[in-house]
Amino acid sequence: MNISSYVDARGNLSVIEVGDLPFTVRRIYYLHGVPLGATRGEHGHKLLEQLMICMHGSCEVTLNDGQTQEPFKLSLPSVALYVPPGMWRSLRFVEPDTVCCVLASKPYEKEDYIYDFEDFLAWSSQRSPDRSHP
Amino acid sequence: MNISSYVDARGNLSVIEVGDLPFTVRRIYYLHGVPLGATRGEHGHKLLEQLMICMHGSCEVTLNDGQTQEPFKLSLPSVALYVPPGMWRSLRFVEPDTVCCVLASKPYEKEDYIYDFEDFLAWSSQRSPDRSHP
Repeated sequence: MNISSYVDARGNLSVIEVGDLPFTVRRIYYLHGVPLGATRGEHGHKLLEQLMICMHGSCEVTLNDGQTQEPFKLSLPSVALYVPPGMWRSLRFVEPDTVCCVLASKPYEKEDYIYDFEDFLAWSSQRSPDRSHP
Repeated sequence: MNISSYVDARGNLSVIEVGDLPFTVRRIYYLHGVPLGATRGEHGHKLLEQLMICMHGSCEVTLNDGQTQEPFKLSLPSVALYVPPGMWRSLRFVEPDTVCCVLASKPYEKEDYIYDFEDFLAWSSQRSPDRSHP
């Protein structure tokens, strides 16, 4: 989704009115100082919704819902990626000094995380057993 | 204030639990692509509270409450500056590619802004006429 951005000779201002998001922002985190080429994420969330914004640099995000994997490239601060519930995600940092900021719908809840991909696939198939037979 | 940060060989993760902040986050904005040496802000807010974080690069923030001016340098993503209500603020961008992210306590409200410094001083003195005589 596009973030409202005001561009003039003094630079760019991008604005998110929190009330316009599809979820309440409970947690804000940002990844910085990540070595070039490193991959972060590599876990699934059951219910968490997120908005990912690459505020500087560039990262490649891969989302997997248990059936389909989709790649995204985040390199514009004025573009955000909405991550719905039930997604495995990985983020590869492909430019030096990349900063990725994430707005999340929940405070930290250990039980919402799935750290093993096979476990994620099993959870995902149980969550929606008929999603492969639409 | 320090932001909880988790540092390891894969880089840094800084986390803000929104419920721990002294205000509810209603608006999130970020300044990027600002020319080196440019100054942003240069206005006052009546009631708005903010948390400023320099996620990349470096900026010099000046806060003025109508009586006292105080400079701050933001250059660490793990450090945030809390801006209380009733402050005139200016931000000078002193490194290339600086990104400054601001969490704010209100949606956009035109009547909360004061764009003229003399008007701000007049408003500030009326707000707290005896602050100069503690």
